[in-house]
Amino acid sequence: MISRRADAVTFDDVRAAAERLRGVAHRTPVVTSRTLDARTGASAFLKCENLQRMGAFKFRGAYNRIALIPAAERARGVVAFSSGNHAQGVALAAKLLGVPATIVMPSDAPASKIAATREYGAEIVSYDRMTMNRGEIASRLAAERGAALVPPYDDPAIIAGQGTVALELFEDVADLEVLLVCTGGGGLLAGCAIAATAMRPGVAVYGVEPQAGDDFAQSFARGERVEIAVPETIADGQQTTAPGELTFPIVKRLCAGILTVSDEELRAAMRFAFERLKLVMEPSGASALAALLAGRADVRGKRVGVIVSGGNVDAARYAAILAP
Amino acid sequence: MISRRADAVTFDDVRAAAERLRGVAHRTPVVTSRTLDARTGASAFLKCENLQRMGAFKFRGAYNRIALIPAAERARGVVAFSSGNHAQGVALAAKLLGVPATIVMPSDAPASKIAATREYGAEIVSYDRMTMNRGEIASRLAAERGAALVPPYDDPAIIAGQGTVALELFEDVADLEVLLVCTGGGGLLAGCAIAATAMRPGVAVYGVEPQAGDDFAQSFARGERVEIAVPETIADGQQTTAPGELTFPIVKRLCAGILTVSDEELRAAMRFAFERLKLVMEPSGASALAALLAGRADVRGKRVGVIVSGGNVDAARYAAILAP
Repeated sequence: MISRRADAVTFDDVRAAAERLRGVAHRTPVVTSRTLDARTGASAFLKCENLQRMGAFKFRGAYNRIALIPAAERARGVVAFSSGNHAQGVALAAKLLGVPATIVMPSDAPASKIAATREYGAEIVSYDRMTMNRGEIASRLAAERGAALVPPYDDPAIIAGQGTVALELFEDVADLEVLLVCTGGGGLLAGCAIAATAMRPGVAVYGVEPQAGDDFAQSFARGERVEIAVPETIADGQQTTAPGELTFPIVKRLCAGILTVSDEELRAAMRFAFERLKLVMEPSGASALAALLAGRADVRGKRVGVIVSGGNVDAARYAAILAP
Repeated sequence: MISRRADAVTFDDVRAAAERLRGVAHRTPVVTSRTLDARTGASAFLKCENLQRMGAFKFRGAYNRIALIPAAERARGVVAFSSGNHAQGVALAAKLLGVPATIVMPSDAPASKIAATREYGAEIVSYDRMTMNRGEIASRLAAERGAALVPPYDDPAIIAGQGTVALELFEDVADLEVLLVCTGGGGLLAGCAIAATAMRPGVAVYGVEPQAGDDFAQSFARGERVEIAVPETIADGQQTTAPGELTFPIVKRLCAGILTVSDEELRAAMRFAFERLKLVMEPSGASALAALLAGRADVRGKRVGVIVSGGNVDAARYAAILAP
């Protein structure tokens, strides 16, 4: 069993997650661009988790978490709350593992996201965002059914699963000196920091979040978790209000710093990805690239890994960003 | 020297081109999608030339062609006429090889394409599409300067260069039974047919073109080159009016058939690529995928290679296709 202690998430856990994900998750490609290198002065290697199953890295952690549920308990199912990529990640992972999934989603979530989650076979429970607490609904459902609650990031198995992104990148690309990772609750960042620093001691790992939602940056500066109001940003996958309890100590211990990017820098990165890379990135998914393009890190002459975390963006919204 | 006889383009020429392109062209990733497989009943492998340098396969043939110009003749430069990907392919290849490039483009070509071509260091010569013949302008320029004319497809070195797309795909993916290739003038199709049938005898190679521009389909049915009027289609890379003189005999000899897709099927494929694959495809670049999605070929239960030829599409146009 994986302990709840943060320092108990080790590189061995990431390697074990990689074994579980073999042949199930895509080993996503690493893309390079001379235009990007010319513009930034770095040698950049983009790990394309927007090309992962269901369009984001979230599938990795969800699958690793659900695969660890003992066989005798699986029939009772899993419960998660999310209106975003975590919902689809849990729904798909549960389906593949033959586990019933219930996803608690706000009644005003985009129809396309509800449909995609249902397409993966999950039961959707709607709630009114104004009057009801989704965490309570999910906890009550899980208790009633004896189901396992699958949290979006604050869980050792989730963290280990997300760490396989960096594991693959560092296997594929030698001598990376800097790693830029999008962060919301910190599951991807913590997992990648564990893998990256184990595989290449001395690598400088940075989290990247939207300026308006700089809870990780504030927390990192203070050395303790800071809570902020729900941030207004186009990066809907990064609207967390505080770092995770488990993820923050890992980030604090292993990362070099937290960088922030403006919404306009996110849009510019999405347009660059469209025009020059031919890759669809969602706002949150483009944040590490945005930090690179905006010159937030000292990368000149260095080999830099950049994690593109997802590509699930509504067509109308994407169109408006491309052609304003 | 490569002979001008069509059957003189051999798999050895493709292999030699691959050597020239090593470390210069991207070895583009092969992407799979369970959603695509579930929808089509096939196991599809997408070779992503939209992730190639300058955003399309055209760079391969242009580089291979220009690299074969003897050192003593290079200073006289190269000339090409194109308002599309061939222009950028020639401009970039020439720049890398230190050869001056002149591109003849219509004065009403999109500003973004003119700018991109100029960014690669090419000289642009504009002409009035209504009153002047671009071929004559290019030939005159080439003659005046002693420069080499780089044709878009009807050239053995171009054909061999484009064939490296299939060479890489068949190296990376075993046992492909069907190969779907976008075709305009037939350079990519002919080159890929040479490589594919050499590496896997018995593979069924199909060209795919827009319904409105079915010059290859008509020619294939008749067994001889048929000329049509300039087709009206959103597939601007496939508005050729006849198969190439060199490419057609190769296609006739090695291919299983020519498939056609409607503009609406091209749009649907582009939307599918956006929503499910997170890949930006231009209309022509999506045509092989469109044929797969529209059920044009017998692919059920088969392993199918699909070449995505390019991703250069204007942002406003792409936005209009995504969110009509």
